[in-house]
Amino acid sequence: MPETLTLYTAKVCPYAHRVELALAEAKAQFQTFEVDLQNKPVWYAPQVNPASKVPAIAYGGPEVPPEQPSPDSTKIAESLVLLEFVADIFPESNILPKDPVARAKVRFFIDAVGNKFNPAYFGYVVTGKGTQADLIKGFKDIQALLPETGFAVGEWSIADAAIAPFIARLFVALENDFGLYAVGEGPKTLELIKTSPELKRIQTYIDDITARKSFTDTFVPSIIKNSLIKRFANATRASSAL
Amino acid sequence: MPETLTLYTAKVCPYAHRVELALAEAKAQFQTFEVDLQNKPVWYAPQVNPASKVPAIAYGGPEVPPEQPSPDSTKIAESLVLLEFVADIFPESNILPKDPVARAKVRFFIDAVGNKFNPAYFGYVVTGKGTQADLIKGFKDIQALLPETGFAVGEWSIADAAIAPFIARLFVALENDFGLYAVGEGPKTLELIKTSPELKRIQTYIDDITARKSFTDTFVPSIIKNSLIKRFANATRASSAL
Repeated sequence: MPETLTLYTAKVCPYAHRVELALAEAKAQFQTFEVDLQNKPVWYAPQVNPASKVPAIAYGGPEVPPEQPSPDSTKIAESLVLLEFVADIFPESNILPKDPVARAKVRFFIDAVGNKFNPAYFGYVVTGKGTQADLIKGFKDIQALLPETGFAVGEWSIADAAIAPFIARLFVALENDFGLYAVGEGPKTLELIKTSPELKRIQTYIDDITARKSFTDTFVPSIIKNSLIKRFANATRASSAL
Repeated sequence: MPETLTLYTAKVCPYAHRVELALAEAKAQFQTFEVDLQNKPVWYAPQVNPASKVPAIAYGGPEVPPEQPSPDSTKIAESLVLLEFVADIFPESNILPKDPVARAKVRFFIDAVGNKFNPAYFGYVVTGKGTQADLIKGFKDIQALLPETGFAVGEWSIADAAIAPFIARLFVALENDFGLYAVGEGPKTLELIKTSPELKRIQTYIDDITARKSFTDTFVPSIIKNSLIKRFANATRASSAL
């Protein structure tokens, strides 16, 4: 019998979504507990994750309700640590390839998501310090790593889990014009990303990762939209210059 | 016969040092090429690493001189990607444990090095924006992850390779009073780190990682010192307030 596994997650959180994708692809049996990030249960930080963030996994130990985590389970946090962990406990799932060079490519791709794509996304949408051009550059950096067809390294892998939640949330933000860019710019930027001939390869890639069953089973756009409405309701923004 | 392996490194660079440690522990056979970071060979970026950084590994393909990298070898960059890669190609070395939970602990430790310890180090020494208290907090964050004895997760692992180069360089900087903290503060901070009763566990850990043969074989303090002299020669610094 496999070890017990409980995922502490939040539908709104892209980091947690990464792990939901990996577990779905691995066809894992697990319990899930939705953490209300605005009102976290008092037991969550002391008993599951001292950093008080999602995602976290409780692994092993007796079967218990998620609200009563056992001291005998191992608690593991950090989305990228968890992607590797899910791949390690489900080696037959091949969500991380066996070949060392292919594995290095997966990890290099994930590094680029964290150090190139996400800063471009957050700079443009969340802090307002980045430009549309920075965001497009972020897409091009990722596009440059893609093989001619297929996913990040060919077959679907945790590299795809690392980026899909962020692109999906970015698209919801742009579509609804949520973000610290100029008012009205969001839908135009989205149109540019979706139609620019310079982004042809990554357009196909985005279609592929968001059409995947593990993705459609785990992504709830309305939750993202409602969260963004609250987040940007009182934001001070420039008028559109575009 | 194992695949050919060439490491492009620079003795001064802590990121490259990580990979030197992993290869030494794995008892790998490999060629090495010291990249002069102030005067990089013209072929380095186009033929080895487009980001023009060390470390990088050329793996596989024919035996060639490092200065003439073969297009048939795979080029891999980023120190953390390379630590995992070395562990993957030398599984018998056990520099990454086999147990999934232990592997997750290694990766969580490495995450803390990158997101907690190194920002505290760079803030105090390199940018001058962090305080001595921030640095001590960085050490305590790492200390909190250590088991009662031994290395980061018990046996030596790539978690130890991830942090040792940074602590060693920090100590050279402090000992010689190089950094953007107040003049004269470096040696006092070093003394505090080495003697504070609150840091007892990590003091033993630092002794252990820096006494390890792979470390003493790969660390050249004089190179670090000379590099720091150049770096901080013209720095504007406050007078010591301590």
